[in-house]
Amino acid sequence: MQLTLGEIAERIGAEVNGDADVVVTGAAGLAEAGPGEITFLANPRYATLVPTTRATAVIVPKDYRGNSGAILLHTAEPYLGFLRILQVFAEDLSARPREVHPTALVDERAEVAPDAAIGALCVIEAESRIEAGATLCPGVFVGAGAVVGAGSYLYPNVTIREQVELGRNVIVHAGAVIGSDGFGYVPHAGRHEKIPQVGTVVVEDDVEIGANAAIDRATTGITRIARGTKIDNLVHIAHNVQVGEDTVICAQVGISGSAKVGKRVTLAGQSGLVGHIQVGDEATVGGQGGVTKSVPPGTRVSGYPAMQHDRARRLNAYTRRLPKLFDRLRELEARLEQLEKESS
Amino acid sequence: MQLTLGEIAERIGAEVNGDADVVVTGAAGLAEAGPGEITFLANPRYATLVPTTRATAVIVPKDYRGNSGAILLHTAEPYLGFLRILQVFAEDLSARPREVHPTALVDERAEVAPDAAIGALCVIEAESRIEAGATLCPGVFVGAGAVVGAGSYLYPNVTIREQVELGRNVIVHAGAVIGSDGFGYVPHAGRHEKIPQVGTVVVEDDVEIGANAAIDRATTGITRIARGTKIDNLVHIAHNVQVGEDTVICAQVGISGSAKVGKRVTLAGQSGLVGHIQVGDEATVGGQGGVTKSVPPGTRVSGYPAMQHDRARRLNAYTRRLPKLFDRLRELEARLEQLEKESS
Amino acid sequence: MQLTLGEIAERIGAEVNGDADVVVTGAAGLAEAGPGEITFLANPRYATLVPTTRATAVIVPKDYRGNSGAILLHTAEPYLGFLRILQVFAEDLSARPREVHPTALVDERAEVAPDAAIGALCVIEAESRIEAGATLCPGVFVGAGAVVGAGSYLYPNVTIREQVELGRNVIVHAGAVIGSDGFGYVPHAGRHEKIPQVGTVVVEDDVEIGANAAIDRATTGITRIARGTKIDNLVHIAHNVQVGEDTVICAQVGISGSAKVGKRVTLAGQSGLVGHIQVGDEATVGGQGGVTKSVPPGTRVSGYPAMQHDRARRLNAYTRRLPKLFDRLRELEARLEQLEKESS
Repeated sequence: MQLTLGEIAERIGAEVNGDADVVVTGAAGLAEAGPGEITFLANPRYATLVPTTRATAVIVPKDYRGNSGAILLHTAEPYLGFLRILQVFAEDLSARPREVHPTALVDERAEVAPDAAIGALCVIEAESRIEAGATLCPGVFVGAGAVVGAGSYLYPNVTIREQVELGRNVIVHAGAVIGSDGFGYVPHAGRHEKIPQVGTVVVEDDVEIGANAAIDRATTGITRIARGTKIDNLVHIAHNVQVGEDTVICAQVGISGSAKVGKRVTLAGQSGLVGHIQVGDEATVGGQGGVTKSVPPGTRVSGYPAMQHDRARRLNAYTRRLPKLFDRLRELEARLEQLEKESS
Repeated sequence: MQLTLGEIAERIGAEVNGDADVVVTGAAGLAEAGPGEITFLANPRYATLVPTTRATAVIVPKDYRGNSGAILLHTAEPYLGFLRILQVFAEDLSARPREVHPTALVDERAEVAPDAAIGALCVIEAESRIEAGATLCPGVFVGAGAVVGAGSYLYPNVTIREQVELGRNVIVHAGAVIGSDGFGYVPHAGRHEKIPQVGTVVVEDDVEIGANAAIDRATTGITRIARGTKIDNLVHIAHNVQVGEDTVICAQVGISGSAKVGKRVTLAGQSGLVGHIQVGDEATVGGQGGVTKSVPPGTRVSGYPAMQHDRARRLNAYTRRLPKLFDRLRELEARLEQLEKESS
Repeated sequence: MQLTLGEIAERIGAEVNGDADVVVTGAAGLAEAGPGEITFLANPRYATLVPTTRATAVIVPKDYRGNSGAILLHTAEPYLGFLRILQVFAEDLSARPREVHPTALVDERAEVAPDAAIGALCVIEAESRIEAGATLCPGVFVGAGAVVGAGSYLYPNVTIREQVELGRNVIVHAGAVIGSDGFGYVPHAGRHEKIPQVGTVVVEDDVEIGANAAIDRATTGITRIARGTKIDNLVHIAHNVQVGEDTVICAQVGISGSAKVGKRVTLAGQSGLVGHIQVGDEATVGGQGGVTKSVPPGTRVSGYPAMQHDRARRLNAYTRRLPKLFDRLRELEARLEQLEKESS
């Protein structure tokens, strides 16, 4: 795909200081962009890179006055403008034919919108529904009675188990599994007897789910990921978990069964939550934090077992002073002994 | 699927206090169950929910005397009864046609039991064996010489590498990989030379393996998961690991090479074991615990490096008192200095 | 596959002390090897196992003088010799027909070397290139414009997203995903707006990537894994990460965005790195280590937050002594009080 600088300027409300018919075919950061690419300057710290950039064009702030071998596009919000152009290139890269590939296996009782894109070797089972404009890359499995909402995009080799519902504009990255059985057993005759997992998963609009993540269906009822939440690679979400809106769950986080995570929460990488607790709205769990009890709204916790972050930091600082503490104690003991001798 | 209350009562040994011809089509927890569903009361704590439940029927203890708009089924063990009914609904949901789907690719030297269910786009390679009543969902790969035991159930996009043996009634969730190469190299000429991994994996009867889990084949010999062990999502089990019977391995646990884990052990979520150690029967490792040396049978450990859980908790409590400890030390120093002055 | 002891001796420069026409069909460790298999003795500690081994043949050091029911092959470096024979058996196990399977879907604008092996149900999209001698097992997806270098081996159900480049002799294990979108958003109108990820991933020669690992493409530019680096199962590597040559990344490690990891670094299992830091050449991060700031070359760090390993160990030792410290403090306080009483 290619765009002229004039087309770009029109899309982002910029002014071209040079030949508007020049064409770019990609976008990259200021340090990496080369000929044929457009880049941007948002942070004044990097202004020194503009004069020597190899890029064909640079989106710069309105008040930028420096020179450059590249053609400059002046605009009010360069980063937002760059983002819009990235989106254009990205959509172009990810577009797929609006058709059912002849090797896809669509059950006759499934409902597929005419403008959905169903890739090669997808399997779409009975009573499921693929809504308008949804895209399934090759090798996606959609189980019986599942729903893929309008505009959603499923990358290769994704598994959507039966009855699972994805909302509109959901993105699921390659290898992710949604609706796997929850991990539940009862002791019976000295062994673990499986508790059937007959609930499901509801993923609301605008959620994104990372590569090889796994979200379990509820035992009964619903595991729910609310609108706008973003989930990174290799995250585990157990049965009956409820995650609120616009929450950010970083890579390799694990959330145990029936935990409730609020809105606009941040769970940093590799952190873990025990089951049945609540993490309040806008709380933050630090990287590798091990949360063993509920976290009030707006609170930042870290460490294992997780505690208020400031306190955890203070305790870490005290711990680092332990060698000196032992020295001081030893000195005290000696001085005290000396005093005791003298006074006896 | 639908069951009459009479059929349910017969299956679980209950007495119907109402119209036994009423039909239910699903089962759910007491708080969530709606019309057309059956639920249960086991814990007296929830008895207040029975009168107002929206469920069509409730399985209750024999001595339950409360009223309800729902039809009550009295039985000795309500939870076990509910579990049996859940199992009926779950089996119905997961049943697949006892046939080889025409798009499945079964090598002519593979052996597939006549009543196995082989889904669309499965690949079953030479000399492998799929036993009676086994189910392969679409997109499963079974490598050369591998065995899938009777009654086992493999969800979509599972990879069973060559020579791997699964016992009877094994469940493998979507995206799991069994028999990937162990992670072994020798230094050679300043680089890492791969040690070929020519062993295999044996998974015994009644084991369950979670979504996107990975179990490596042995370098030589066998990585073994013994009967009845349950493994959650995204677990990593390295080459030559031995796991005993009826052990529970929670999500995102990692077990390093050649570790031996006993029977009825519990490894809580995100815990990790270094290689070549032993974890004794009925030991427990706490969430995120980092086990760096062998754990005796029956012991509970936690933290990093993992130590006896009670001791770890006590040390955590002491650590939380460090700020006060420093205060006390400072005060002691001041008082001692005062005394020294006085006595000099 | 079978080899005579004569053929083996020739390959590894050994001398057969017995019938060189005897045939073996496999290789295993000294404790496990049985009839028809060859094993080895490298560590003198295990010499007592040689006389009673059930193996057909044993590769032993030149100066080994013990007896055995097995046929002995004397050579200078028994382990290296054994490794070579393992490699022969392993190559035989993993060899696949040099053809494009009739069910594979190769875009007509893709370029596939005549001697590549393309398995059943692979999808190879436009403008991609599969080089000489590369092997794709069944169910592999290779996106548009991607490159699979000569001699590389991709196990079942691997996803290589568009534009990703794999070098020569790269091994990717089942279920791994390379080139998934980086996890990047900007706040916009109170929500998370996705930053399109239009960069890519370059995996250089001789890299190995474990089962169900996930490596994200760069936002713009390149996520790079340099030559010879080995990555274990379920590892997460975020967008724009740079990993140097011959580094070892153990299972379930997580590397956050834009981190730079040097050459010959070791990241032990379940360790994690925050974004934008540097880990110097030949540094080591201990198991479960949580690295929150840059690590100088050659340094060993562990714990959370990660610090120099020796210091972390020392602080752990001090922490274990806290109960006694409190006792000593209490005693000091009592004695001081006594002194104060006396001196007043």
